[in-house]
Amino acid sequence: MSQETARAAQDGASPVVGIIMGSSSDWDVMRNAVAILEEFGIPFETRVVSAHRMPLDMVEYGAQAVPRGLRAIIAGAGGAAHLPGMMAALTPVPVFGVPVPSRHLHGEDSLLSIVQMPKGVPVATFAIGDAGAANAALHVVACLATTDDALQQKLVAFRERQTEAARAMRVPPAPAA
Amino acid sequence: MSQETARAAQDGASPVVGIIMGSSSDWDVMRNAVAILEEFGIPFETRVVSAHRMPLDMVEYGAQAVPRGLRAIIAGAGGAAHLPGMMAALTPVPVFGVPVPSRHLHGEDSLLSIVQMPKGVPVATFAIGDAGAANAALHVVACLATTDDALQQKLVAFRERQTEAARAMRVPPAPAA
Amino acid sequence: MSQETARAAQDGASPVVGIIMGSSSDWDVMRNAVAILEEFGIPFETRVVSAHRMPLDMVEYGAQAVPRGLRAIIAGAGGAAHLPGMMAALTPVPVFGVPVPSRHLHGEDSLLSIVQMPKGVPVATFAIGDAGAANAALHVVACLATTDDALQQKLVAFRERQTEAARAMRVPPAPAA
Amino acid sequence: MSQETARAAQDGASPVVGIIMGSSSDWDVMRNAVAILEEFGIPFETRVVSAHRMPLDMVEYGAQAVPRGLRAIIAGAGGAAHLPGMMAALTPVPVFGVPVPSRHLHGEDSLLSIVQMPKGVPVATFAIGDAGAANAALHVVACLATTDDALQQKLVAFRERQTEAARAMRVPPAPAA
Amino acid sequence: MSQETARAAQDGASPVVGIIMGSSSDWDVMRNAVAILEEFGIPFETRVVSAHRMPLDMVEYGAQAVPRGLRAIIAGAGGAAHLPGMMAALTPVPVFGVPVPSRHLHGEDSLLSIVQMPKGVPVATFAIGDAGAANAALHVVACLATTDDALQQKLVAFRERQTEAARAMRVPPAPAA
Amino acid sequence: MSQETARAAQDGASPVVGIIMGSSSDWDVMRNAVAILEEFGIPFETRVVSAHRMPLDMVEYGAQAVPRGLRAIIAGAGGAAHLPGMMAALTPVPVFGVPVPSRHLHGEDSLLSIVQMPKGVPVATFAIGDAGAANAALHVVACLATTDDALQQKLVAFRERQTEAARAMRVPPAPAA
Amino acid sequence: MSQETARAAQDGASPVVGIIMGSSSDWDVMRNAVAILEEFGIPFETRVVSAHRMPLDMVEYGAQAVPRGLRAIIAGAGGAAHLPGMMAALTPVPVFGVPVPSRHLHGEDSLLSIVQMPKGVPVATFAIGDAGAANAALHVVACLATTDDALQQKLVAFRERQTEAARAMRVPPAPAA
Amino acid sequence: MSQETARAAQDGASPVVGIIMGSSSDWDVMRNAVAILEEFGIPFETRVVSAHRMPLDMVEYGAQAVPRGLRAIIAGAGGAAHLPGMMAALTPVPVFGVPVPSRHLHGEDSLLSIVQMPKGVPVATFAIGDAGAANAALHVVACLATTDDALQQKLVAFRERQTEAARAMRVPPAPAA
Repeated sequence: MSQETARAAQDGASPVVGIIMGSSSDWDVMRNAVAILEEFGIPFETRVVSAHRMPLDMVEYGAQAVPRGLRAIIAGAGGAAHLPGMMAALTPVPVFGVPVPSRHLHGEDSLLSIVQMPKGVPVATFAIGDAGAANAALHVVACLATTDDALQQKLVAFRERQTEAARAMRVPPAPAA
Repeated sequence: MSQETARAAQDGASPVVGIIMGSSSDWDVMRNAVAILEEFGIPFETRVVSAHRMPLDMVEYGAQAVPRGLRAIIAGAGGAAHLPGMMAALTPVPVFGVPVPSRHLHGEDSLLSIVQMPKGVPVATFAIGDAGAANAALHVVACLATTDDALQQKLVAFRERQTEAARAMRVPPAPAA
Repeated sequence: MSQETARAAQDGASPVVGIIMGSSSDWDVMRNAVAILEEFGIPFETRVVSAHRMPLDMVEYGAQAVPRGLRAIIAGAGGAAHLPGMMAALTPVPVFGVPVPSRHLHGEDSLLSIVQMPKGVPVATFAIGDAGAANAALHVVACLATTDDALQQKLVAFRERQTEAARAMRVPPAPAA
Repeated sequence: MSQETARAAQDGASPVVGIIMGSSSDWDVMRNAVAILEEFGIPFETRVVSAHRMPLDMVEYGAQAVPRGLRAIIAGAGGAAHLPGMMAALTPVPVFGVPVPSRHLHGEDSLLSIVQMPKGVPVATFAIGDAGAANAALHVVACLATTDDALQQKLVAFRERQTEAARAMRVPPAPAA
Repeated sequence: MSQETARAAQDGASPVVGIIMGSSSDWDVMRNAVAILEEFGIPFETRVVSAHRMPLDMVEYGAQAVPRGLRAIIAGAGGAAHLPGMMAALTPVPVFGVPVPSRHLHGEDSLLSIVQMPKGVPVATFAIGDAGAANAALHVVACLATTDDALQQKLVAFRERQTEAARAMRVPPAPAA
Repeated sequence: MSQETARAAQDGASPVVGIIMGSSSDWDVMRNAVAILEEFGIPFETRVVSAHRMPLDMVEYGAQAVPRGLRAIIAGAGGAAHLPGMMAALTPVPVFGVPVPSRHLHGEDSLLSIVQMPKGVPVATFAIGDAGAANAALHVVACLATTDDALQQKLVAFRERQTEAARAMRVPPAPAA
Repeated sequence: MSQETARAAQDGASPVVGIIMGSSSDWDVMRNAVAILEEFGIPFETRVVSAHRMPLDMVEYGAQAVPRGLRAIIAGAGGAAHLPGMMAALTPVPVFGVPVPSRHLHGEDSLLSIVQMPKGVPVATFAIGDAGAANAALHVVACLATTDDALQQKLVAFRERQTEAARAMRVPPAPAA
Repeated sequence: MSQETARAAQDGASPVVGIIMGSSSDWDVMRNAVAILEEFGIPFETRVVSAHRMPLDMVEYGAQAVPRGLRAIIAGAGGAAHLPGMMAALTPVPVFGVPVPSRHLHGEDSLLSIVQMPKGVPVATFAIGDAGAANAALHVVACLATTDDALQQKLVAFRERQTEAARAMRVPPAPAA
């Protein structure tokens, strides 16, 4: 598995979250997930794992998810987006899916391809695009925080800052009457 | 909070999962989540918490989620489904949303009202209806299992049985040629 | 409640209409509501009240709506737009919802999240975007005018001017045959 | 205007709300609006006014709305639903539109035909079907209540009963484990 | 009726087709209908007739359609597009509707608001935008041509030229292999 | 062309309207067009002409439409509904398309396949299902009536009866208060 | 691979077409593909291969497709339908996808999940439901027939019978005038 | 048939694949199919064949497809896209349809007009736009390869290169923490 981007290794920690995507063109959306995990100091790795062009690598990635210690997989894909659902089929590690906007149908196809999973194999699905990528990561943080008090405090602080930022918003003055 | 259904208390355990829904009419869908948690022996509680008719109870439920030890909240609602997103706004406990099928638009409104959350406040969303309710619970099990080896073994066994059941499926014989 | 924009106070009048929105990024749409209320001289205030990032402020805003003398609340939000519906749950003051266009689904998610409210908690919903914001304000004017003869005369005059403006429209000449 | 159903006259009061619909087949939906107005004791009248089959009656109804003292018009229609929008064009009395479910498109056509009004002529739109009809009436009550303390008290009491009814909801027991 | 654009009068002929639209902003689409009628030498007039801002002018236009000798009305509108359907209600002259693209929903609202008319009051509906405007005019030409041999010959010749133009189309050379 | 249903011949008149449909299963919808033409005494014929299973018959039908004296063709089809558009390509006789409801997508596919014709080849499209079939026939009547005073009088009388029938509609009494 | 339904073996021929589906509940749709292949005497096999519950069996099925001599795979699935696309990723044997109608979204999710494949990995997609299953098989027959003259003659004869059956369709008599 | 682009003739081979499209404006999408066939050295021809403007040419093209030795037809069209389905009706040669994006509805109309064919006349449908055009050609290659070992080897090699290219994808470095 030499081709992975071992970003997580920078501080010597094994990744606990895998961020995978169907193509490098999905990066512009998925970087929003990266930004959140970095902000919370969660060790992670990023990989291109194409369900359709690299199906056996995908199988291998799924098979290794538990042994390698991953506790969550964030998977983004667009169009007939099969990566999140297939990863969920290949590992008991919980999968968090991000519908990447598609060229012609605005991500509606991506959303339905990810969220409408059959009973038995869940994918936790988030909003189309940037907001969904960030929120998938935030949801992973929230899950990890349920057994990590320090992380929970960070999360609570993050949300308080977010609330303060919203409270500080001022709408522009109206045009003179 | 006397009106809760303290089903979790049957075996003396405090609930770790709250299953809430906007109306008792959502039960037929949400029972699929209950069935999964029972199968895995996860202590849970069930409550009707209407975002629109009981907003202050909803706020209180959110405020108490961490102190009461909840580690996940499964929220089902239909139409302009605000319960999952509002609960996500009210507690750092991760929220898992279930779009309940609506009368006229088949749950498409429920799905969009739950999944399209803005950056910063995630709701993990699942399929419309029964499959989504079961899968929300299975995803909670998977999250809890990342720090609970016994539960992880149960989950792996569940999935193996599921695989065997699928493998055992036989399609009916064709009509005589 | 020091962070409100007390635009209404400019002429010493208490606001009778609250214009709230989920984010300062909604301003470009919601300013169309402001322009109408200014044209009719209705005292109003504008506030960012995020349902998801400031839920307790939202509860407080709802609780104070009647005591503060608000007679209408215009609420704009996009995506999984919960602000109008939650505000309607929190106060008997009538709520007028404006679906703000969303990035990927063109406001179809915003529209369904606002209009498909369950029986018992109404949100009067208007068109997606600028037209909806202006029309929410015009509808508020029409409601207020039912007990205010001067305002009714202003409204009738406004509509007459509007009719005259439409009547004065000339379509360009055709290209030479 | 002899063909109107002078239900309001039962107690000698002039109607303050007109409930109109495009066809008698819309009654099954629109009766939900009637039930609310009766519960609150608001004098009203009901009429079939077809935009497409009785356009001149519709014009006349609009012209008489102010002189006859109507303070709100609730209009329901399905498919290419033009009645609410046209009535809004014909009178400054505020119009509250109800999308009646259509046979093939489930009321999505009705909804868009009513809500997507151009800037300048508002229709306050509510959910498709029964919920929308009830909520249109409740919104009218809320508007009228802003200048009628007794009605406001009734509305607050109605909402409190509604909250209590939701709080009293119990989800059925789970199937034996 | 002084405000009409009496383009038809240029050659002394009374208009046999009325082209009406809800706003001067619809011109860019509706000019495609004009171009066809000019090409075929059909006397026509163009008017802005806003269903929502000029409802009584619309009624008058409908009432005069037969006396003034109109044999077809082409009506374009966008969003909650009521002009074609209302005109069809106001005159037995056949109405040809053009869905003008809307800002947020791409004309899907315009299309449904025009095509989904109830039994009894037809609007012949064409494609969204430029193609629909041209085709509405071509359909009018085809209807008129059924009792006008010279026009029928022109139409056949138009279609033959159209066929030849399509036959002459060459696709660009492929990039060098 | 022996397989046609020469219903028109009953009174010795040549058909002026052809009603064609893609399958005999479309009859239940298309009979609504038949009923209108019978009511107005317009000579017509009905035929199954499947674009996909009988393409050469379709071509022949188109080629003979003018020589046989047809002045309008009403074509109904469902799903990927190509019959109306292809017939419009094959004859200058105006084509009136009826989207027959489809099994899975409720006629939305039928509607788009018929209405979204390219510039140059128009199909006048009507509502999905029964209403559309009746209205296609009524529109044909209106077109024919522009050069037939007796028919115009019948049409005006039909519409007056329709208006009277709508005016006579009474909504049921409300449940006792 | 003992669990396969070796229907093809009945006449001793190795299957050239694999018909696979995500669940035995898809049989009611997929039997339409079986009926066509039987009619044309194409040796085939049927299997339940769940992408989500049996992913490794799916991988194995794909790996064996070429060695086992399959020349086409017909794959049916519903909801987030990943089986056709994943099979296309796992073998160069051409895959023909059938969207099985889903419970809540009528197969729209199934269709988009199958048809919107990224560049490089094609799935030939057919209509939702029964028609799509039959047509997938007919398309396979047509592909095989391009190198099998006897099969081509059978196909031509099938289509001629189909044309004759359509030509023989008579629409019911109209109700008495 | 002098107007065809006899690109295939460059190396003296008769075309085995016909690539047809409704207009020269479809070229920008359909060139993606050309590029694939060129890469695999499959003799092909390209033609504009408009179903609506050149219906008789279309019939002729279909009639000649078998005699001229075509083994596959790739047909692209947009909007009410009838070319693929009609070609499928006119020849037993298998047809592969490409939905070209439409101006207002993003190709959703094109997709439904192509994929929702009735039982008996199949069109193998691919994704909207560029990906669909390339994939239609790849699917044709895969079908041809089932009886051509050299082509099968080329296809396997193409897929291996594609897999390697995906494996080589690196996501950009994260912004500095």
